[in-house]
Amino acid sequence: MDTAPFEQWESEVRGYCRAYPTVFATASNARQVDEQGRSYLDFFAGAGVLNFGHNNPRMKRAMIEFLEHDGIAHSLDTYTTTKRDFVERFRDVVLHPRGMDHRMQFTGPTGTNAVEAALKLARLVTGRTDVVAFSHGFHGMTLGSLAATANDAFRKWAGVPLRDVVRLPNETSPGGGIAGLDAYRAAITDPSSGLLPPAAFLVEPVQAEGGVNVASVEWLHAIQSLAKDVGALFIIDDIQAGCGRTGSYFSFDGMGLDPDVITLAKGLGGYGTPIAMNLNKPEVDAHWSPGAHTGTFRGQGLSFVAGTVALDYFTDDALMDEVRVKGGRMRQALDALAAAHAGGAGQGWQVRGRGMMQGLDLGDGALAKDVQRRAFEAGLLVGPCGTNGQVVKLIPPLTIPDDDLDQGLDVLRTVVDEAVAA
Amino acid sequence: MDTAPFEQWESEVRGYCRAYPTVFATASNARQVDEQGRSYLDFFAGAGVLNFGHNNPRMKRAMIEFLEHDGIAHSLDTYTTTKRDFVERFRDVVLHPRGMDHRMQFTGPTGTNAVEAALKLARLVTGRTDVVAFSHGFHGMTLGSLAATANDAFRKWAGVPLRDVVRLPNETSPGGGIAGLDAYRAAITDPSSGLLPPAAFLVEPVQAEGGVNVASVEWLHAIQSLAKDVGALFIIDDIQAGCGRTGSYFSFDGMGLDPDVITLAKGLGGYGTPIAMNLNKPEVDAHWSPGAHTGTFRGQGLSFVAGTVALDYFTDDALMDEVRVKGGRMRQALDALAAAHAGGAGQGWQVRGRGMMQGLDLGDGALAKDVQRRAFEAGLLVGPCGTNGQVVKLIPPLTIPDDDLDQGLDVLRTVVDEAVAA
Amino acid sequence: MDTAPFEQWESEVRGYCRAYPTVFATASNARQVDEQGRSYLDFFAGAGVLNFGHNNPRMKRAMIEFLEHDGIAHSLDTYTTTKRDFVERFRDVVLHPRGMDHRMQFTGPTGTNAVEAALKLARLVTGRTDVVAFSHGFHGMTLGSLAATANDAFRKWAGVPLRDVVRLPNETSPGGGIAGLDAYRAAITDPSSGLLPPAAFLVEPVQAEGGVNVASVEWLHAIQSLAKDVGALFIIDDIQAGCGRTGSYFSFDGMGLDPDVITLAKGLGGYGTPIAMNLNKPEVDAHWSPGAHTGTFRGQGLSFVAGTVALDYFTDDALMDEVRVKGGRMRQALDALAAAHAGGAGQGWQVRGRGMMQGLDLGDGALAKDVQRRAFEAGLLVGPCGTNGQVVKLIPPLTIPDDDLDQGLDVLRTVVDEAVAA
Amino acid sequence: MDTAPFEQWESEVRGYCRAYPTVFATASNARQVDEQGRSYLDFFAGAGVLNFGHNNPRMKRAMIEFLEHDGIAHSLDTYTTTKRDFVERFRDVVLHPRGMDHRMQFTGPTGTNAVEAALKLARLVTGRTDVVAFSHGFHGMTLGSLAATANDAFRKWAGVPLRDVVRLPNETSPGGGIAGLDAYRAAITDPSSGLLPPAAFLVEPVQAEGGVNVASVEWLHAIQSLAKDVGALFIIDDIQAGCGRTGSYFSFDGMGLDPDVITLAKGLGGYGTPIAMNLNKPEVDAHWSPGAHTGTFRGQGLSFVAGTVALDYFTDDALMDEVRVKGGRMRQALDALAAAHAGGAGQGWQVRGRGMMQGLDLGDGALAKDVQRRAFEAGLLVGPCGTNGQVVKLIPPLTIPDDDLDQGLDVLRTVVDEAVAA
Repeated sequence: MDTAPFEQWESEVRGYCRAYPTVFATASNARQVDEQGRSYLDFFAGAGVLNFGHNNPRMKRAMIEFLEHDGIAHSLDTYTTTKRDFVERFRDVVLHPRGMDHRMQFTGPTGTNAVEAALKLARLVTGRTDVVAFSHGFHGMTLGSLAATANDAFRKWAGVPLRDVVRLPNETSPGGGIAGLDAYRAAITDPSSGLLPPAAFLVEPVQAEGGVNVASVEWLHAIQSLAKDVGALFIIDDIQAGCGRTGSYFSFDGMGLDPDVITLAKGLGGYGTPIAMNLNKPEVDAHWSPGAHTGTFRGQGLSFVAGTVALDYFTDDALMDEVRVKGGRMRQALDALAAAHAGGAGQGWQVRGRGMMQGLDLGDGALAKDVQRRAFEAGLLVGPCGTNGQVVKLIPPLTIPDDDLDQGLDVLRTVVDEAVAA
Repeated sequence: MDTAPFEQWESEVRGYCRAYPTVFATASNARQVDEQGRSYLDFFAGAGVLNFGHNNPRMKRAMIEFLEHDGIAHSLDTYTTTKRDFVERFRDVVLHPRGMDHRMQFTGPTGTNAVEAALKLARLVTGRTDVVAFSHGFHGMTLGSLAATANDAFRKWAGVPLRDVVRLPNETSPGGGIAGLDAYRAAITDPSSGLLPPAAFLVEPVQAEGGVNVASVEWLHAIQSLAKDVGALFIIDDIQAGCGRTGSYFSFDGMGLDPDVITLAKGLGGYGTPIAMNLNKPEVDAHWSPGAHTGTFRGQGLSFVAGTVALDYFTDDALMDEVRVKGGRMRQALDALAAAHAGGAGQGWQVRGRGMMQGLDLGDGALAKDVQRRAFEAGLLVGPCGTNGQVVKLIPPLTIPDDDLDQGLDVLRTVVDEAVAA
Repeated sequence: MDTAPFEQWESEVRGYCRAYPTVFATASNARQVDEQGRSYLDFFAGAGVLNFGHNNPRMKRAMIEFLEHDGIAHSLDTYTTTKRDFVERFRDVVLHPRGMDHRMQFTGPTGTNAVEAALKLARLVTGRTDVVAFSHGFHGMTLGSLAATANDAFRKWAGVPLRDVVRLPNETSPGGGIAGLDAYRAAITDPSSGLLPPAAFLVEPVQAEGGVNVASVEWLHAIQSLAKDVGALFIIDDIQAGCGRTGSYFSFDGMGLDPDVITLAKGLGGYGTPIAMNLNKPEVDAHWSPGAHTGTFRGQGLSFVAGTVALDYFTDDALMDEVRVKGGRMRQALDALAAAHAGGAGQGWQVRGRGMMQGLDLGDGALAKDVQRRAFEAGLLVGPCGTNGQVVKLIPPLTIPDDDLDQGLDVLRTVVDEAVAA
Repeated sequence: MDTAPFEQWESEVRGYCRAYPTVFATASNARQVDEQGRSYLDFFAGAGVLNFGHNNPRMKRAMIEFLEHDGIAHSLDTYTTTKRDFVERFRDVVLHPRGMDHRMQFTGPTGTNAVEAALKLARLVTGRTDVVAFSHGFHGMTLGSLAATANDAFRKWAGVPLRDVVRLPNETSPGGGIAGLDAYRAAITDPSSGLLPPAAFLVEPVQAEGGVNVASVEWLHAIQSLAKDVGALFIIDDIQAGCGRTGSYFSFDGMGLDPDVITLAKGLGGYGTPIAMNLNKPEVDAHWSPGAHTGTFRGQGLSFVAGTVALDYFTDDALMDEVRVKGGRMRQALDALAAAHAGGAGQGWQVRGRGMMQGLDLGDGALAKDVQRRAFEAGLLVGPCGTNGQVVKLIPPLTIPDDDLDQGLDVLRTVVDEAVAA
């Protein structure tokens, strides 16, 4: 295992490699194998990108065929047959069944770019500058989206003031919930409050990076109502929780919500191939002028190809049913783990999540880090998140085999027990 | 040709497709073919991404092999064998021969992300906020890089004030040049001037989007000296002009410059596969903490694979020699075109460029747009840039066959003649 | 009555003259007389400046003597005998009896300048930028203090974004009170909340302009505790409520509070002569460097002279006892008025205040404006304040004769009855 | 001389008292007397406020009479007979003879407030945010005006970023002059420059605090033309150089300029009594709404009274003729002083000024400070200004007797000689 070239030539900013100190060589579905041939169960899935597993065979075949036939690999926002396939497929599989007529905006291929575009659009539509974002929210690392991101561990590196965002507590933080929204509503309708109506409310139905915080239907509806009432856009950031992760295509499916903008990225490209897309309601989208938001890598042929195959998973209920079942098993395992420690170190531990994004809040960042380290040594990849990194987040590929899932949960139980005992 | 799905379902923000109203199906080297089978000469190369042609055969083979062997497609910033190959290859081919010991920082895969990371680092290192950027510069579309971008056609959509940038005229703009830098130096060393030393100077040796403005060695050295003298970082944005475009790997090779940070993207991934990388001097890079700047799509296996193959082009002088020859032919053609019209409509036209980035400044945005339209109809893809889009920019793949190059230049001459006559 | 010169030559921005459309010629204690010889009872006192009445005879004598003896009228912050008298007198009458060792900072002569200086100091001491200010707060009209002011009627004219202020609900606004402070405390001690500890908390114990909102001792203590706990300054803006207005020198006397900075202006100069002063705790004040905050009119001899005489009113309890008695009478009258209408138009009316600042919240800006108009016509000057100007604020000179006070309250009752009936 | 009360109880921020370490007791015309009876010649005039001398006898009489007759001392912006006298007198003496129809806006009584109001109005009229201000400019200490102030010695205490100002070099700074304006014009008319047209140009015809920098007529006209051409307001800050200081009422009289807004303060109140006033062209002023900019101390009776008397000095040419003669004498003395040292320490010294504002630029802040100290000890008050405080500025009262002026210039020559020799 030769990591020296990285240590000598890669920037000090590199991070995950420090938690997983090996060199990975190949991968398949929920497993990565390093160059010594050691196999790891992957409960991290590339930060929630690999919903359909590493190197999904159907996508792989399609990509190879695309390459062999000289498809358009890079097209900016010119029209290509491959892109048209994706657009039509997305329309047929996602939009039509839900009665949605949102327009697809391909921003730069990263989540942060999607959020930046959404914020531009909200400000353009309303002529207002401030956007409401919530505590524990994560929306990206470029200046516009970083201003909306809550965690000071990311914010403090901006080097300039992060502005034009009004911060409200998320649902479960002190001062949050419906009462918090009511207080904010009162403020922005009182001309002497010092606060004016915002351009948008930007919310994650499930905060992933923020600590696996699941918003209630009621709270999301309250945000939506408030947004509509004050002429602000209602923007759902579904970058990590969308694309099937929670047991339905959107994390908010079935809630009766009607967002003006939905941001998607991560799982959208299927194979880890970069693509990001906003869904804008037509009346909102109509405010854009051609070229108002651009980006070099908006037209990725491989991402369209793999992303089109990925949509096949949503033409019937098979995978989503599986997600609910496996998610239930994950939840059970975490609940049992928390219960086992409830009388001791686990006092105050919380289990949170939906579908196949489940988190165990250990209330202690050092403990979570130790769990991550021990898990890695035992052949399981997990990542901490939330305040001080105290939440162990489980986001395996949705396609993980049952045995791998069970084995991973077993490993987790063992290393948590060990970490607590240490 | 069915463009209806785009018109009905894609966002109004789509742009290039309006200038090239067809649906592309396949591509090879300097040609794209639409679904009617019509072939187009590509003098735009995906906005300067496809330096090595569409679907470069060697890269294609390597990518297919990588896919077939289940390489790690998506790795964040964990270590992979594929990434190690790229890092070592870049070190051997680019850094070592130049005696450079810069560290490679893989930011998110787009140019804007690279610039955002560079600005964060400059502010972190200096503890200052303002960054100098130049008129006509283009650095990206997210809020941090957009603040450095000059063109109001992009800036005006921000929806919030764009701050923390001090704008200086570029070399050829009124008040610019060495005298402009001297005046700025005088200001930032006078405590009563109202200006303080900046965190960084961010400059493109050749402004591509800004109108193919080629900076002189002297001016770039003057910027570098000023930066060093006042404790600011000297950042070169080589996103469009780097990776061989101007006849050498970096656009500033051979100038004796020593930038603190170099931003690369576009051509770096070789095949149109997204990747961006900053090269940070070690003493500057040392200011980063792990995870201070992150991003989901920093570890793209396909980009590493194709990018590694791309570096083969720089192990001997063959391609770069070719670039200089073809660039000369392009220049000649444009000079001749300008000369032919000098007595009439072409009074004041300018030809500018280096290597295989050459521009014809028509001084008239409507005329340039008409040229673009006529060229498309005649089977040639070109893109306007610069103030009001008045510069026709030619950036064909570096690997374009001579016949294609000549044919394209012929087409250009014809349509310019027609447009002028119209 | 010739108002034409004003209408022709004074700016459209003029305001109070539109509510009191006459030309005043002379004044004495609580009465102003216009050039037609009509006498008005003054329950507005120059926006709370004239605590000791118009043209207070003792001050007048001292000022004339000062002028006749060529005292230093304008001294910047050089030392003068007159200023020394004021400093020593303030120390003896205000600071020593309270065991305070605050330093006196003479800012420019207006309240807004005092607030600007206080905010600079807080940011200097803490190295932080954001300052907490409360809904309905009023702190001035220059950009720094305007950012802290809540009312959009003032804010909207800034022409630039008003930044660097975190807005919290005041005690009685939704989301406010102790619970609101607790939620904010939770946020600024959670690194993932998106909020960091502020530089200062800026609060008025009685919001005057904001609608006569009286803060409770408990809430003010909670703010102070929070400030101390998070290393922020606790700043009390006593510009309108201080200098005896509420029945004690400071509006917060007897509450056991220990503010880091107290801003004073308005009543401080005694005669309407401009002066503003911050009281800074020595350990806070020590952060200033000489000349860090300056201003031309910081050393006003006439203001020092009249201000020194004004302090005589606080050497015994006579005036403050009077204020409590008269304030009680004002309260009684307003309570009676509210009670009389409680069954009809007055449903929801509120009476609020302390000492001789009392307000009747009519819940209706148009009604309050009508009351003001009718009062003027009946010879009584009152001013509306609060959200939409719906609160009739009574702030007569503290020295108002009993008869004048009763007469004014009678007039008020009559015009309110009439306005309701209209 | 008892300075202990100040040292113990006044803020550390106090400044001028450190340069003039005595306690002043009385003053008359150009002399101040301390409590030991020592007389000082005042060449500083309260930072340019006391144009008509300390305790001007005619103003004093009028003020005493006003006090004795119970005039309205404090009136906000209600109408008073005293204010009407001032308005009519200003119209007759200043506006009418110049054919000006500007409206008088009484802002808060300090210069900084006048500038804040002017910037609000410019932003309101144009809907733009950025204001052009020049290097070495001084415009005040509150956040809005401080952003326009150039000197970092003042700016660095803001504690927050100072924004919304574009900084251009003044006429004599590198990159300045007509060429600098032309370059800026080119930038704001090029949509790809990164700069947009500003809301206003804010300029001092003579920069006082900035180092006695006298702008040429041509340069001021170029600014005005540029402002008109790009739809920006042309604002002249005449706070220190106006009210007769340079030999005419406005410092720009006779130049054929037509500013949209003129800010006045300092000398306007005559006796050191605070007042500030903007003169707004009617079409500009019409954008104000009532109460859009307010302030407690806008209606100062004593300031109106003394200010009205001050206007008598401008009904004939007597005083202005005197100013030109005395100014000539001051200039001669400084020129001689500079010439005397030109072969030695005075190499590079410059003499600059107009009328009775003259400065000797010693190119050395420590030397200027030593001159100030020695002058004080020799009974002469002068103040340094400019970059690093290297310019000795002479601004005696315009009414200074010839003997006092000559004596003061003698003292200055002596102490400069001594300081150089030291």
